[in-house]
Amino acid sequence: MPELRQDSITGGWVVIATDRAKRPENFTQAEKETTANNKDCPFCYGNEQMTPPEVMAYRAPNTEPNTSGWKVRIIPNKFPAFIPEGAPTIDKSGMYVQMNATGTHEVIIDSPDHNKHLALLSNKEIVSIVTAFRDRYIELKKDKHIKYILIIVNHGKKAGASIEHPHAQLFASPIVPISVTNEMKGASRYFKTTNKCIFCNILQEERKTRIRVIMDTKHFLAFCPFASRSPFETWIIPKKHDSHFENMSPPEINNLASIMRVTLAKLNDGLNNPDYNFYIHTAPCHSPELPYYHWHIEILPKLTIQAGYEMGSGIMINIARPEDAAAFLKIIEI
Amino acid sequence: MPELRQDSITGGWVVIATDRAKRPENFTQAEKETTANNKDCPFCYGNEQMTPPEVMAYRAPNTEPNTSGWKVRIIPNKFPAFIPEGAPTIDKSGMYVQMNATGTHEVIIDSPDHNKHLALLSNKEIVSIVTAFRDRYIELKKDKHIKYILIIVNHGKKAGASIEHPHAQLFASPIVPISVTNEMKGASRYFKTTNKCIFCNILQEERKTRIRVIMDTKHFLAFCPFASRSPFETWIIPKKHDSHFENMSPPEINNLASIMRVTLAKLNDGLNNPDYNFYIHTAPCHSPELPYYHWHIEILPKLTIQAGYEMGSGIMINIARPEDAAAFLKIIEI
Repeated sequence: MPELRQDSITGGWVVIATDRAKRPENFTQAEKETTANNKDCPFCYGNEQMTPPEVMAYRAPNTEPNTSGWKVRIIPNKFPAFIPEGAPTIDKSGMYVQMNATGTHEVIIDSPDHNKHLALLSNKEIVSIVTAFRDRYIELKKDKHIKYILIIVNHGKKAGASIEHPHAQLFASPIVPISVTNEMKGASRYFKTTNKCIFCNILQEERKTRIRVIMDTKHFLAFCPFASRSPFETWIIPKKHDSHFENMSPPEINNLASIMRVTLAKLNDGLNNPDYNFYIHTAPCHSPELPYYHWHIEILPKLTIQAGYEMGSGIMINIARPEDAAAFLKIIEI
Repeated sequence: MPELRQDSITGGWVVIATDRAKRPENFTQAEKETTANNKDCPFCYGNEQMTPPEVMAYRAPNTEPNTSGWKVRIIPNKFPAFIPEGAPTIDKSGMYVQMNATGTHEVIIDSPDHNKHLALLSNKEIVSIVTAFRDRYIELKKDKHIKYILIIVNHGKKAGASIEHPHAQLFASPIVPISVTNEMKGASRYFKTTNKCIFCNILQEERKTRIRVIMDTKHFLAFCPFASRSPFETWIIPKKHDSHFENMSPPEINNLASIMRVTLAKLNDGLNNPDYNFYIHTAPCHSPELPYYHWHIEILPKLTIQAGYEMGSGIMINIARPEDAAAFLKIIEI
């Protein structure tokens, strides 16, 4: 019997309708075609002139900007969704409202290696990437016109990656995205009645039942949420309550790199390198510490297609139980 | 410069960030592989036994149910998201809420022709399909446990169609989907301040400026919305205010069939048979006539991929201006 499950944060619903024939291992992906590190890739060593000038890089001593020798390199996106032009101006066109999309849109190149995506990098390399996320975050939030910074990864063509060389993107916008305000509203409502952070309570519940837990480390928990929107949806959440991801200490960043690497490696090994979207949900830039909001990472493997029902209803139909997905990922040895 | 545009109904935002190199005609799709009408297709004549027994069909006189001779055939979905089991029972599992997904999930087979999708059928055939939508709608809403009926079409593999033979689907659920409640909330808010239906005002605005209009017929308008979420998003909306689609009169159904056929044929000819999702937004089943809500059809061609930013923010990045999309479709002769 299919089930409707409620997202306890936003109040939204998903349908869990498992096609009985489809066991977790049947989501295994076909082999991807990949190209070797090559002379046409703008993100490879030696091609730094093919991109706009870098805004930041971690690089070997005595190497010049926009030359090789970097470990992580950050550049403006060539086709930006947001452009640094100060304050947005609101414009009315008849009954409609628009504004210029001011802000910033950057690309974080993970490493010089064209073929090593996050699941294949070392802990140390992922520590550099997460530290770069944090450094850019702290720098950009100084701009009072930037209201939100969303950091995302698109891995694979089906997930929307147009350049194969592994990279993340940072979108700094003059508005707070609705997906974040929806989580904040739900969490704030819960806090008002219970005086508790709903994310902390989810952590507690998941660590109690353990049926959706993939991995439990010193500072973080990786699990498949109760109302997973798609097969193998995975969250990584800090155990310590904090609304702002940029508050992480170096030991926490180190532990996050490790759980990110192992969780993504489990997905990679278990499902043969599935495409996925990854993003960090954190409090808005200029928000004080919030007792009800809790930053976290959401990973959505792209194993099925959002079709008409999902688009028209906002109710996702998920054909894999999160309990089955978690049990499958949990036992994969990395 | 990229623009943020606000959806005047829901208040949500989209980014219009046109890649300048990409003119509307560059969205033209590659040729699709299709199979001929064939002996393995469960929706073709002669294979009626391959599906669950039909729940309704328009068929030639003196033909038996579940044999050939039908024009439109409606069957239960083999892998249903909702199952007819009366009232849903709410269940608590720790801090989480779930219920059994009661309701109905049906498939409406457009015609016996394996290769003729909506854009290629005759007006008369589409009248039969829309009438079948309405007949099933009226029948199923008698069930007091069914709160909403969403009718959708997935055209093409990228839009989630798993069976090639053209068909629609009907999802009858025990909850009202969030996409509909979001529209209703926004429209109700607008009505409270203006005493006007926002959809009626959009109709008026679009017919005044005409820059986003694709087609204007006696009873309906087809246009690309100001805050289009994806390239070539198209709405078809009745000119007469009505919250309930099942209230359509036969002349209105006739006119709807015509504007649906021509609009979809323009997309088909202009972009070489793009995949798309199509759905009907109407008031909830047991709602009275609403002065603020206005039923309509939304068509979302699947020309780009929803990636991490869209998933994580709820803000769609659209790389084509709706004004350009409408101008392109408007001049295509059918």
